[in-house]
Amino acid sequence: MTAPRRRGRPGHDQDAVLNAAVRLFNEQGYDATSMFDIAESLGITKSSVYHHISGKEQLLQMAMDRALDGLFEAAEDVREADLPAIERLERLIRLSVLVLAERFEFVTVLLRVRGNTEVEQHALTRRREFDAVVTELVKQAQAEGDVRPDVDPATAARLLLGMVNSLTEWYKPRPGGAEAIADAVSNVAFEGLRM
Amino acid sequence: MTAPRRRGRPGHDQDAVLNAAVRLFNEQGYDATSMFDIAESLGITKSSVYHHISGKEQLLQMAMDRALDGLFEAAEDVREADLPAIERLERLIRLSVLVLAERFEFVTVLLRVRGNTEVEQHALTRRREFDAVVTELVKQAQAEGDVRPDVDPATAARLLLGMVNSLTEWYKPRPGGAEAIADAVSNVAFEGLRM
Repeated sequence: MTAPRRRGRPGHDQDAVLNAAVRLFNEQGYDATSMFDIAESLGITKSSVYHHISGKEQLLQMAMDRALDGLFEAAEDVREADLPAIERLERLIRLSVLVLAERFEFVTVLLRVRGNTEVEQHALTRRREFDAVVTELVKQAQAEGDVRPDVDPATAARLLLGMVNSLTEWYKPRPGGAEAIADAVSNVAFEGLRM
Repeated sequence: MTAPRRRGRPGHDQDAVLNAAVRLFNEQGYDATSMFDIAESLGITKSSVYHHISGKEQLLQMAMDRALDGLFEAAEDVREADLPAIERLERLIRLSVLVLAERFEFVTVLLRVRGNTEVEQHALTRRREFDAVVTELVKQAQAEGDVRPDVDPATAARLLLGMVNSLTEWYKPRPGGAEAIADAVSNVAFEGLRM
């Protein structure tokens, strides 16, 4: 797929700036990354970067939105499915793995944010909303008798997402890799390791 | 338990400096924390801090060692147990939850380190060694027919530790809380959520 290119700045559109920024945020940290670093990594001037972007915080927000939008699209997909809660839960966990693999660098940025600014606080609020969707599905699946009753739904949700989110620490994106990890997460979380 | 106090600097021994440093590292980040901040948070002078500590990197190393030593003591405990591999694996995962809860601030420091210096690289190497202990237990438990054969042992180990490590993101230390979380992790990971 080729996007129309801007005159004189081939490929250096907003997306290219965002991708370069996110790579640097993950490599050297958000605080340590300057707009100059981002421009330099693209081989363009700082003023060319400001042509596309208002500043570093906009890039952070865009990165986190890419991650969160993917997760909420998955939640929406699952919400509309006419399936028992446990099936919707399992599907949402699988989709979360796929979103994380596909938007790896964006999710990594999201998960490192500590809520130091308003933009970061807003992202943390959306993360908590997503956690609540997962908790609610665990609760429903318990009510339907499909999830063990001796696990607190909020704790179960956090452990499920803890497994999924740990991918940012060790997963190396590669074709087909995400499906295998989604299977593993699903097997461990829903069936358990024990034979 | 009361430790002998130094003349003129009540309570401001190495441990107090370490605890203050670790709190600041987790609140505002390692890079953003100065030796002056650490001294200030204790209400003492910077030179009093240097009386106990060679510098910020020593504090980082001590913090990471507290976390890692706890995990390796658990591994040692389990290595000596005369039990099937699956029981040793489950015990090690439970103990990891307890270590994390007990040394919460130290483990949080450890898990945020990215390997930017030699001290950080060394800690990452020890983390990988611990991962390998868990992987080996999964492998043994599979060979003994007690763990499902369709999960890659290294992936299973990462998912187990992903659940445990996620505690640094959401667990609020409180008496008895760690035992309940250890039960939940064990139930989800070994028996699975599905009834």
